[in-house]
Amino acid sequence: MPTLEILEFFDAPSTSAGRSAILIEHVNEEFTSVCPKTGHPDFGTITLRYEPRAVCVELKSLKLYYQSFRNEGIFYEDVTSRICRDLADAMSPSWLQIVTDWRGRGGIRSRILASSGVVPTAWARG
Amino acid sequence: MPTLEILEFFDAPSTSAGRSAILIEHVNEEFTSVCPKTGHPDFGTITLRYEPRAVCVELKSLKLYYQSFRNEGIFYEDVTSRICRDLADAMSPSWLQIVTDWRGRGGIRSRILASSGVVPTAWARG
Amino acid sequence: MPTLEILEFFDAPSTSAGRSAILIEHVNEEFTSVCPKTGHPDFGTITLRYEPRAVCVELKSLKLYYQSFRNEGIFYEDVTSRICRDLADAMSPSWLQIVTDWRGRGGIRSRILASSGVVPTAWARG
Amino acid sequence: MPTLEILEFFDAPSTSAGRSAILIEHVNEEFTSVCPKTGHPDFGTITLRYEPRAVCVELKSLKLYYQSFRNEGIFYEDVTSRICRDLADAMSPSWLQIVTDWRGRGGIRSRILASSGVVPTAWARG
Amino acid sequence: MPTLEILEFFDAPSTSAGRSAILIEHVNEEFTSVCPKTGHPDFGTITLRYEPRAVCVELKSLKLYYQSFRNEGIFYEDVTSRICRDLADAMSPSWLQIVTDWRGRGGIRSRILASSGVVPTAWARG
Amino acid sequence: MPTLEILEFFDAPSTSAGRSAILIEHVNEEFTSVCPKTGHPDFGTITLRYEPRAVCVELKSLKLYYQSFRNEGIFYEDVTSRICRDLADAMSPSWLQIVTDWRGRGGIRSRILASSGVVPTAWARG
Amino acid sequence: MPTLEILEFFDAPSTSAGRSAILIEHVNEEFTSVCPKTGHPDFGTITLRYEPRAVCVELKSLKLYYQSFRNEGIFYEDVTSRICRDLADAMSPSWLQIVTDWRGRGGIRSRILASSGVVPTAWARG
Amino acid sequence: MPTLEILEFFDAPSTSAGRSAILIEHVNEEFTSVCPKTGHPDFGTITLRYEPRAVCVELKSLKLYYQSFRNEGIFYEDVTSRICRDLADAMSPSWLQIVTDWRGRGGIRSRILASSGVVPTAWARG
Amino acid sequence: MPTLEILEFFDAPSTSAGRSAILIEHVNEEFTSVCPKTGHPDFGTITLRYEPRAVCVELKSLKLYYQSFRNEGIFYEDVTSRICRDLADAMSPSWLQIVTDWRGRGGIRSRILASSGVVPTAWARG
Amino acid sequence: MPTLEILEFFDAPSTSAGRSAILIEHVNEEFTSVCPKTGHPDFGTITLRYEPRAVCVELKSLKLYYQSFRNEGIFYEDVTSRICRDLADAMSPSWLQIVTDWRGRGGIRSRILASSGVVPTAWARG
Repeated sequence: MPTLEILEFFDAPSTSAGRSAILIEHVNEEFTSVCPKTGHPDFGTITLRYEPRAVCVELKSLKLYYQSFRNEGIFYEDVTSRICRDLADAMSPSWLQIVTDWRGRGGIRSRILASSGVVPTAWARG
Repeated sequence: MPTLEILEFFDAPSTSAGRSAILIEHVNEEFTSVCPKTGHPDFGTITLRYEPRAVCVELKSLKLYYQSFRNEGIFYEDVTSRICRDLADAMSPSWLQIVTDWRGRGGIRSRILASSGVVPTAWARG
Repeated sequence: MPTLEILEFFDAPSTSAGRSAILIEHVNEEFTSVCPKTGHPDFGTITLRYEPRAVCVELKSLKLYYQSFRNEGIFYEDVTSRICRDLADAMSPSWLQIVTDWRGRGGIRSRILASSGVVPTAWARG
Repeated sequence: MPTLEILEFFDAPSTSAGRSAILIEHVNEEFTSVCPKTGHPDFGTITLRYEPRAVCVELKSLKLYYQSFRNEGIFYEDVTSRICRDLADAMSPSWLQIVTDWRGRGGIRSRILASSGVVPTAWARG
Repeated sequence: MPTLEILEFFDAPSTSAGRSAILIEHVNEEFTSVCPKTGHPDFGTITLRYEPRAVCVELKSLKLYYQSFRNEGIFYEDVTSRICRDLADAMSPSWLQIVTDWRGRGGIRSRILASSGVVPTAWARG
Repeated sequence: MPTLEILEFFDAPSTSAGRSAILIEHVNEEFTSVCPKTGHPDFGTITLRYEPRAVCVELKSLKLYYQSFRNEGIFYEDVTSRICRDLADAMSPSWLQIVTDWRGRGGIRSRILASSGVVPTAWARG
Repeated sequence: MPTLEILEFFDAPSTSAGRSAILIEHVNEEFTSVCPKTGHPDFGTITLRYEPRAVCVELKSLKLYYQSFRNEGIFYEDVTSRICRDLADAMSPSWLQIVTDWRGRGGIRSRILASSGVVPTAWARG
Repeated sequence: MPTLEILEFFDAPSTSAGRSAILIEHVNEEFTSVCPKTGHPDFGTITLRYEPRAVCVELKSLKLYYQSFRNEGIFYEDVTSRICRDLADAMSPSWLQIVTDWRGRGGIRSRILASSGVVPTAWARG
Repeated sequence: MPTLEILEFFDAPSTSAGRSAILIEHVNEEFTSVCPKTGHPDFGTITLRYEPRAVCVELKSLKLYYQSFRNEGIFYEDVTSRICRDLADAMSPSWLQIVTDWRGRGGIRSRILASSGVVPTAWARG
Repeated sequence: MPTLEILEFFDAPSTSAGRSAILIEHVNEEFTSVCPKTGHPDFGTITLRYEPRAVCVELKSLKLYYQSFRNEGIFYEDVTSRICRDLADAMSPSWLQIVTDWRGRGGIRSRILASSGVVPTAWARG
């Protein structure tokens, strides 16, 4: 069962006031959960992007958090929205975005994007 | 014959006021209809992108709705425009966009884009 | 000899006032004309993009119009500019753009872009 | 030895006042000069983009101009800057940009961009 | 041990006041350091982009500077932030950006972006 | 309903005795039929390869023959086997091969290969 | 728990004696099992290729058979070998091959190939 | 009108008896002729491969020979067969192969292969 | 310092006599050693392919064995040959092949292949 | 002027009698010479593959040897044949192959292959 308890955090690198910013992206191409309607597994890529305020998420704990959805029955839209809200609550970042790309069913593939805060200029143009 | 009756909807994930947004894209690479002029089949990819206000479209019903065009004689521009208008009417989303990419005839391939509402910033830069 | 007489048009799909827009792109990867200087054939891709005001160009007539340049001696810049002006005159669209991509000569490949009107926001971000 | 004398120009296509614009890109994937420090040859792609005011550069003369750098010892940054300045002086275009992409040395590949004037909107979104 | 002492600089090409700009990108696909937690090597690509004010960094010295991290135990976020800060201090450029792309561990690959100053328009649209 | 009556043939180019051979491949990326079990449409690419003995199949008639399967309920293996047998019977070629590549259902994509005669050396190594 | 009971079969298309052959490939890019050593999930693509003697495997039942490994702890080599042996036992094909491609751990990706019988010439050259 | 008169030849490099061989491939992605049935232009790539016995074909003359088909009405199979026979007659090579790849009509693309002599081992495995 | 002591092995899956075979490939894209001449690091991909007789190499131990070359000064040809000989000695496989692909120096990239035994037919055609 | 004097060699790794073999490939994507007919530069990729008998060619000296053709007027076929013969004479390898891939002139790109000895089985199937 998915739980935020698994997540660990560390201090973001200090950045000089008004001059420097740091943006982070972690892409996991091995996300899987279960369709609550059919019981068939769903496979996708989950991308986390954020601008930390004080803390960064530790990679191995993030991987375990994602793995906790393996046998969870949950819709595309809900899992994307939930992970976005949970990580935003846990880290209070300046900006955070979750993008899920699903291999799809019956010939339709899907992308869901949930976000909290405004895309930093440096990322949008990077 | 194409009909909106097939479509089913479910509640969009709730999003905290003023802080979070959700954007959705479904890509179907198996769209086919018939050219009303020559009677030959047309093949294309149809992409639906939208920002839900209250409801999301259920994937299997969307697939069946698309399949209902299989033997319909209809031009590229009209089928794109019609699907855009119908889905916008049915879901009242904040933004909705239909992009069709056609394999083409006689060496010319085409893309038609119909939209309703303004592209959300998060998608444009995502 | 190239002539606009070949072109045929049909009514653009009606769009609800202030809410919906349609944008169209036709890509022809089989364009050929002749270099007026060397007499050697030029090969390229010609892309037409436009936002119709009242009419759309019929695809087969567009193909024949393009084919009428097959043995015409004309420079890259001129053919691009001419097709842009002619189609803009014939259709009075809100926006129209011609992009030609030439396979090139002597190791240099070229792209020429001619336009009339301002790129619609929906296309620029689509 | 590189010299601007080789370059030839022709009149840009006339464009209706206030309504139409033309933008031009020439990509040469066969640029080579010599590293002044090591004497080893450098290989790269050189891209010229511009919006003509009155004249366009003739392609074959441009190719010969580029070839004149073949045995010239010159740094990445300098050759990019020099070609940008020389072509801008010779054509007085509304906008001109030189981008060089170098295959690199010791595992590092480089891109240098020099420009004169502001990127036209039609190109930036094209 | 990483040290800035290795770096060498040369004068940026002079640019006419108010009319011309130069932007530089160096991509090194052979960056490696060590994970301070597991002791396993990390592999990635490091991209430096900047707009020089007075000096440019010499390529071979940049390569040696990067190589000095080979056996250094340092986190993704910290090495990105540190290189950004050090090069910005050493060159005082108008704008500087470091992007690191890591092959990843346990199925998650990462991108970290650190920057100093605002992305120049010419680069963002280039 | 699929029928061989649609097919037309023309004489193969004459080839000098013992010295020259001709091999032909036609790839149709727009094949569609219907799954007899679920009623859902199947989409695929169908490739015909053959070495003619006396006649070649005319392209437009081949296209119409393929289109006659559009609303036919038939399994992957059967449609491949049937087209192979029918074309081999109709043309009596030295060699004939049908390869179908299906976009698949439920995350599994399939390739079926049916053949009549031995692959000519020139093709196998070509 | 993996079990062959799930599998269903249907009669292979009849093939004229000595003249025609059929070869079949099913590619599933959504295979997942669990590493028995670390407990972490493994992700891979599993490819089945065979020449049927009397029966073909039904696709949906094959998918369910693969899904039954989802929470099974089993090594790369063993799962490949086991599926090869089980399907060969169940279908008695003329030839059968299982290829698994694993996304890998710690920077190493793997391919395992198990086979029963000799590759048919038509496939090897197809 | 196509004519072999345009072709020029030069002596093949001498090769030590029994020890060395030379194989040559020229790929022209700009071939065009006309469909004799519909009058529409056909576009394709034409590949010449051969092992010279005494002479090689000069590149510019080969290009002019290909260009002489520009307004010729001729079927795919015939133009491939004709060029193969003509070049084989003119050069008497040890081996010669013509492969034409056509962009196709009505969703079907084609490859025609004509050859004279046996593929040399060094090429087949090269 | 590289040492075979790190390697661990496990029993190969049992294969029915005369009917089944197993082939294994491990690709490590993160190999690095040092050039003994210049002291600069070399980066490459190392591929191990083998047909086990009795034992398979354990993946994590293989990774550590490769990492032991990180600061070793050794030429491309020697490291390839050495790893081939060491693994062949340690596992006594029916066939073993090492392929190294190096990113290269001074514009030249290299591939070295060392092998022991004959490529199994199933792999060569797989 | 091209000269073999530049080349340096080192001892091939020893290989156990009858059990092990080594094959080597060096790819240089930065080869340039001059067309003796037009005086324009030619650009290409040159690939050397060989099975050493006693010696291997040192990489930096090979690069300098290739660079010595920079201002040499020589045809595609001749430069390929010459380099093949010279390296075969200098190293007396079991097998040696030179493949040159030229960017081409006037829309035609070329590949020339010269070889000495028979392709080793391990390479052909590798």
